[in-house]
Amino acid sequence: MGETPKARRHYLDWAATAIPLAAPGTGADIFGNPSSIHKEGRLAKEALESARSRCASVLGVPSEKLYFTSGGTESNTIVLHSLLLKRGKNRLLYSSVEHPSVRENCIMLEKLGVSTGQIGVEKDGRVTGENLTRALEKYNDTRFTAIMGVNNETGSLMDLASLVPLVRSHEAKTRLPIHIHSDLVQALGKVPVELLDLDSAAFSAHKIGGPRGIGLLYLKKPLESINIGGGQEGGLRPGTENTQGALAFADALERRAMPDMVRAEEEKAGERFKYLIGELRKIKRCGLIPEDREDEDKRFSPWILQIRFRDVPGAVMVRALDDSGVAVSTGSACSSSSPDRPVLASMGLNQTMQLEGFRVSQGWTTDKTDLDALLSGIEKALSFL
Amino acid sequence: MGETPKARRHYLDWAATAIPLAAPGTGADIFGNPSSIHKEGRLAKEALESARSRCASVLGVPSEKLYFTSGGTESNTIVLHSLLLKRGKNRLLYSSVEHPSVRENCIMLEKLGVSTGQIGVEKDGRVTGENLTRALEKYNDTRFTAIMGVNNETGSLMDLASLVPLVRSHEAKTRLPIHIHSDLVQALGKVPVELLDLDSAAFSAHKIGGPRGIGLLYLKKPLESINIGGGQEGGLRPGTENTQGALAFADALERRAMPDMVRAEEEKAGERFKYLIGELRKIKRCGLIPEDREDEDKRFSPWILQIRFRDVPGAVMVRALDDSGVAVSTGSACSSSSPDRPVLASMGLNQTMQLEGFRVSQGWTTDKTDLDALLSGIEKALSFL
Repeated sequence: MGETPKARRHYLDWAATAIPLAAPGTGADIFGNPSSIHKEGRLAKEALESARSRCASVLGVPSEKLYFTSGGTESNTIVLHSLLLKRGKNRLLYSSVEHPSVRENCIMLEKLGVSTGQIGVEKDGRVTGENLTRALEKYNDTRFTAIMGVNNETGSLMDLASLVPLVRSHEAKTRLPIHIHSDLVQALGKVPVELLDLDSAAFSAHKIGGPRGIGLLYLKKPLESINIGGGQEGGLRPGTENTQGALAFADALERRAMPDMVRAEEEKAGERFKYLIGELRKIKRCGLIPEDREDEDKRFSPWILQIRFRDVPGAVMVRALDDSGVAVSTGSACSSSSPDRPVLASMGLNQTMQLEGFRVSQGWTTDKTDLDALLSGIEKALSFL
Repeated sequence: MGETPKARRHYLDWAATAIPLAAPGTGADIFGNPSSIHKEGRLAKEALESARSRCASVLGVPSEKLYFTSGGTESNTIVLHSLLLKRGKNRLLYSSVEHPSVRENCIMLEKLGVSTGQIGVEKDGRVTGENLTRALEKYNDTRFTAIMGVNNETGSLMDLASLVPLVRSHEAKTRLPIHIHSDLVQALGKVPVELLDLDSAAFSAHKIGGPRGIGLLYLKKPLESINIGGGQEGGLRPGTENTQGALAFADALERRAMPDMVRAEEEKAGERFKYLIGELRKIKRCGLIPEDREDEDKRFSPWILQIRFRDVPGAVMVRALDDSGVAVSTGSACSSSSPDRPVLASMGLNQTMQLEGFRVSQGWTTDKTDLDALLSGIEKALSFL
C-alpha cells in the first residue's frame, strides 16, 4: 500500500509506449498504453475510461457514446469522411456558415463523388426552419445534415431544438434515415448544450481552456470510420489514446461546462456584451454584423460579436488593435490566411462589408477593463484610419 | 521589458482559443492560436516554428519538410489516404509486416478502389531486395510503397539504405514516379534514422518519452491531403496546432534522438539483450522468433525481442509475468484485442507458434534488474504452466 508502481514493476513494453521524459505530476504516473493488457496498461485504461465517464456526466450522455479524438476538426472529419464508405447512396446537406473543418471537407467529399447541397441562412446567419425545409425538399435523397450549434464568426445561434425535429419529421415522411451532425465546438461551455436527438456532435478541449490535441465526438450509434488502424476508440479513432489529454478535457469540462455554470457565465457574458454593444453604437462608422443585432439578442451567443467600421478593412483594424494591446481577429483563426469570408457572404454582405468585418470573442476572465481597452483602441485607430 | 504579456494585453479572441485553465509552466504562456495574427498568435506561431526547426535539426532535414500531426498513426494515414484523390491511377504496395495503422488502411483503401499488393518478407521478418523486386515486377503499375523501418513486434530491421535505391531504379526503368513511405515510429531514438531518398516518413513522440497526441510527418514534397479544414500545417493537417505538444516533441527528440546518443544507447541496448538472450537460451521450451536470431544480430533492432515458450500461449505468459511485476505484451498494443498475428504469420510461423509469441521491448532506463525480474518471472510461470 502506498508504494509507487515503479518501485516494484519492471516495464519491458517500451515499443507500446515509453516511460515518459515528462516530470511527475503531469500525468506521467499513468503512462501505460491503454491498449496494453499489463498493469500499466490497465491503469491507463482505467484513467481513460474515468475521463470518458466524467465527460459523459457533464454532457449528460452515456459514456459509451463518447469517443476521444485529437480535436474538433477531427471529430467533424471522422463523421464526414465515413460518407466515403457509402458513396452514391447519400446526399450531404450542410449549412452555408459551417466552420472550414466541415465546409472544406464537404467540398472535398463532393469532388470524391459524394452528393452535397447547401442549407441557406438568413441575414442573421441563422438556419431557420424554412431554410432547412427548403433544402430537404429540394434534395429528397438527403441522408446527412451538418448544422453547427454556434457560428464561430458571428455567434449566430442555431435553434437545434426546433431544427432537429424538422429533419426527423422529414425522415418519417421519406422513410430514409438522416444522420444529423452538429459542430458544437463554439457552444460547449458557452451556451447550454443539449445533444437532443442528434446523431453526432463535435467538441474541442482547447476552446474551453483545456489542452490542444484532444477533442470529443458524440455518436448516438457507432459508425464505420475510414480512420483505421489499431482499433482504438471503438475502431473510430486509431492511435495510442491520449490519456493525459482526456483527463485534462474532463477537468476542463467540470470546471467550465457544468450546465449551471454555463447559464451563469452566459448571463455575465451577455451583460458585458450589452455594455460593449451600447458603447459601440456611440462610435460613428461602427456597424454590427448583422446590422440589426440587438444589445441583448437571443439569436446570438453572447460570447462572439462580429463588427465592422466603414472604410476600415477588418485586417487593418485587427493590426491596429493588436498594437494597442487588444487581441481580436477577422474570421476564424482557421481561415485567417484566406481573404474569403464565405460565412459573411452567405449572410448577404457585399464584399466591402465582408472585408470590413472582424470578430470580438470574450471568455470567463474578460472584464470591463478589456472591453474599455478595445473601445479606446478602436477610437485611437479610427482617429488615423 | 520583463512584463508579462497578460499585464498589458487584452485578449478578446476566445473563439480562436481560450486562455488555458492549465497552471503556468505548462506552456500556458504561449497559449495563442498560431493561426491568429495578433501578438498572442504570433508568439504561438514562433514557438511552433521553433519546435519544428528543432525537430528538423535533430532529424537532419529542412524544417519546411516536417508537418506536425496528432501521432504516428495519423502521419501514416495522411499519406495513405491521399491516394483516395488519385484512385485508379496508383497501385500501393505494402510490406506484409506493417503496423496496423498502415496495414488496415491499405486494406480499407483497397475496398475503396485503390489497387494494392503485398511485399513479402523472409523468415526473419525482413523485406529483402529480392522480395521487393519480385513485388515491383509483379505489379508494374506501382506508384506507392510502404516499408517500415523497424518492425514493432519482432524488431526486424529493414535495410532501407538498399531498398530505397531499388525502388528508384525500378522507377527509372518504368519512368513512373513511385512514392516511398516509411513508418519510422519504432526506429526513432532507437536506431540511426536516415531519411535517405524517402518521400515520406512517420514519427510519434510518445514512443520516445514525449507526450501523446503529437507526431511528425516528413514529406519530401507537399501532397494533397483529404484531411482538410483550416489549412494548418500546409493544408495537410487541419485543426488548431498543438504548440505545447510540438515543443515537447522537440524536447524529447533533443533528449533522445540525437544521432550520437542513439548510437550509444543502441549499443547499450544490444549489450543488455545479449545478456537476456544468452540467459533465455538456458531455459528449456524457450524459442526466439525467428528461431535463428543471434544474441547480437544486425538484422534486428536491439530494443525489441519476440520470444515464445513451447505450449504456453503468449497471452498467458503476459498475464503471468504481469503478476510477477513485469510488463510485456503480445503483439503491438494497437492489436492486443485481436488474436490474429499477421506479422508472425507472414514470417511462416504456424498458428500455435504465432499464439505462443510475445514481445519484450526495452528502453533507456531498462537495467539488469528488469531483465532478471523477467527471467525469474518466466521461470516461475513455467514451473506451473
